Amino acid sequence: MSAHEAYASNNEKYASTFDKGGLPLPPSKQVAVVTCMDARIDPAAQLGINLGEAHVIRNAGGSAKEALRSIVISQRLLQTREVILFHHTDCGMLTFSTNDLRTIVKNASEGDASVAEAVDQIDFLEFGDLEESVKSDVKFLKENNLVLPGTKITGWVHDVKTGKIRQIA
Amino acid sequence: MSAHEAYASNNEKYASTFDKGGLPLPPSKQVAVVTCMDARIDPAAQLGINLGEAHVIRNAGGSAKEALRSIVISQRLLQTREVILFHHTDCGMLTFSTNDLRTIVKNASEGDASVAEAVDQIDFLEFGDLEESVKSDVKFLKENNLVLPGTKITGWVHDVKTGKIRQIA
Repeated sequence: MSAHEAYASNNEKYASTFDKGGLPLPPSKQVAVVTCMDARIDPAAQLGINLGEAHVIRNAGGSAKEALRSIVISQRLLQTREVILFHHTDCGMLTFSTNDLRTIVKNASEGDASVAEAVDQIDFLEFGDLEESVKSDVKFLKENNLVLPGTKITGWVHDVKTGKIRQIA
Repeated sequence: MSAHEAYASNNEKYASTFDKGGLPLPPSKQVAVVTCMDARIDPAAQLGINLGEAHVIRNAGGSAKEALRSIVISQRLLQTREVILFHHTDCGMLTFSTNDLRTIVKNASEGDASVAEAVDQIDFLEFGDLEESVKSDVKFLKENNLVLPGTKITGWVHDVKTGKIRQIA
């Protein structure tokens, strides 16, 4: 069974008792959470986020740089005024370099020049030190002129072994 | 109370009974879910995704284009072979244009030229038709030479009023 078949079946059960259809578009807690796509991260459960409270932005690593487009939309159109950024232990982003991954993709393409050209345009935004990556992303947001002045911005590490979060910045 | 204070408190409770610290890095269902950052979306609950099963990529709109970096990492380094893409009803991305948002940001900056220059570099990736946006993003992934051949790719609309999902592509 493909995952989409299993998830569609699960969704039927979910929808059969769903009773939160009246929530407004703007997040009620005026907050955007940025975190990794990692399969061991479940922000709603791990942070106790209720439906309707928070924007949740997720990408490989929990990159603030890639999240910027979404944060501008979140702040300017939907009134969020806080950003909580998480990276996590045992993150895949600590295990490779952009050059490594470009080589993997090129080697798999059997010499296709269009693949090489496309992958050479992507910065995969890996990082070498977990806590430094959190500090650096918080600094990026605090100094970015598209992020609203006065935004509360904090940076955290989520430990996938314990489920605990710890503030870094 | 800031949202991060409430969420840190919730996390203490979560971690106190956490017993899934041994999950591996690669997603067990070999799938990446792409969806919107919207506060009314909770993929784990709405699709019944168990911890460790799936990468979850979220951004404003559920843009496949912005998700590409994460999808390449997901497939090439962490062995996912399926992408399930969701957009949703009442999405903020249906309500503005990139030019509108650039104007809002510029007007709020009181003539700061560096703000104007920065915001003019961002394509906010809005869309005018919900179902078309799903089809277009699925097409983008199916035709992209960085996405592995043979990847199962499906596109869905999530209805925030009913909690139901519906396949579009």
